[in-house]
Amino acid sequence: MKNERLIFVTNDDGVEAKGFWAAIEVARKFGSVFAVAPRTVQSGKSQSITLYDPLFLDEVRREEGLEVYSFTGTPTDCVKIAFDNLLVGRKVDLVLSGINHGSNSAINVLYSGTMGAAIEGSFYGCPSIGLSLTDHDLDADFTAAKHFSQEIVAAVLEAGETNELPLCLNVNVPNIPQEQIRGIRTSRQCRGMWREEFFRHEDPRGKPYYWLTGAYDNYEIESTDTDEWALANGYVSVVPVQVDMTSYRHMEHLKKILG
Amino acid sequence: MKNERLIFVTNDDGVEAKGFWAAIEVARKFGSVFAVAPRTVQSGKSQSITLYDPLFLDEVRREEGLEVYSFTGTPTDCVKIAFDNLLVGRKVDLVLSGINHGSNSAINVLYSGTMGAAIEGSFYGCPSIGLSLTDHDLDADFTAAKHFSQEIVAAVLEAGETNELPLCLNVNVPNIPQEQIRGIRTSRQCRGMWREEFFRHEDPRGKPYYWLTGAYDNYEIESTDTDEWALANGYVSVVPVQVDMTSYRHMEHLKKILG
Repeated sequence: MKNERLIFVTNDDGVEAKGFWAAIEVARKFGSVFAVAPRTVQSGKSQSITLYDPLFLDEVRREEGLEVYSFTGTPTDCVKIAFDNLLVGRKVDLVLSGINHGSNSAINVLYSGTMGAAIEGSFYGCPSIGLSLTDHDLDADFTAAKHFSQEIVAAVLEAGETNELPLCLNVNVPNIPQEQIRGIRTSRQCRGMWREEFFRHEDPRGKPYYWLTGAYDNYEIESTDTDEWALANGYVSVVPVQVDMTSYRHMEHLKKILG
Repeated sequence: MKNERLIFVTNDDGVEAKGFWAAIEVARKFGSVFAVAPRTVQSGKSQSITLYDPLFLDEVRREEGLEVYSFTGTPTDCVKIAFDNLLVGRKVDLVLSGINHGSNSAINVLYSGTMGAAIEGSFYGCPSIGLSLTDHDLDADFTAAKHFSQEIVAAVLEAGETNELPLCLNVNVPNIPQEQIRGIRTSRQCRGMWREEFFRHEDPRGKPYYWLTGAYDNYEIESTDTDEWALANGYVSVVPVQVDMTSYRHMEHLKKILG
């Protein structure tokens, strides 16, 4: 087993989430698994890092070909402690983040702890895949998500680390039975945003509080090349992700304005 | 004052930070100010949102042309509560996020709570500027940062909301005396990453903990068009920011691989 692949797994729903263990199940088909997951739910944590608190690591499971730890930080902290401390000197072949309970398509790529960790993983030079199922249920059925995740992981590992391959993928699986899924569709990030409503109630001592809730507003319902379209039409969406946020098309005009 | 501009201000260092009040000082030169800042330090919070906790809002200051609130959420939560609740029906002309104590150049755009809020602000259709000074000191000198922030805000407001203008800017001011600053330089996001070291010590009960620290690794020290180069050479860097993370150059190859 000397040349066996090493797969790192993390998530944002926490170490006890069903989807995390589904991702581990997928990863084990391809090699040894080293996993560090947040101890508690970290949904919506984006690519945040913990600067002002000490973080605690605990072993959760250890058996042949599998080591699982919980970490009190964010998903991105989990990637950092793995690559910059626990796995130093070992070659990691792949990062899997997920499988998330809930969609991370479209602009959610920016809010998602799952995708934060996947993006962070890609910084370390190995392919990194964020996996999500569009079902928030704690007991969601990951059968189809595992099937397609395995297919995508196999394709990525077979293609190898070429410049033609993006290091980070955002994969979303629609919440329909596996036999109804029409296939995998390479897509682009749909434009849109969340419009929030805040529940406003009073706490037991009469002080008002706000609680975030909202609905996604799709700016391009007609476009057939977006991740939102793929999911709405029964496809698994795969978006290649890059991290240069520079708006190049605006640079010339901005130079003029700023002198 | 019926047609006076309305400027929304937030930050990630919290409502008490010197840099927040520096941003308010800049904003007041251009109109009425409505500000919601996190109650506590939110550095490194990225574009995270608070899904699982109720959030509390408190008035901090109210006077002619100025309303300031603290909010127990993240910087992005502050933007959302303002635009989707507190300011509904009012036109906001500009969002300022900062002035941050510390740099948000290069890949920090992804980790930064300041830039998370600035990006969120741009979703609501008005120009949104993240402002940072490359000095973490609580009592940092914001004289130069205020001067150049004012110059940039004036230019952006004068240019108006055209398609030629990016909605989001990442502005970083080097920590040198104002008279030594060589000007404003439109730049692109530098490639690089943080390599972390984790302090490892024991808590009072003997349990080991990890604490994040690290150093930025610049992948393109030779390039003269990056924000890192601008800052290192005495310029204020301005990067136009967009939020489509799709890696378009990888799409064709990915389609081939995924069939």
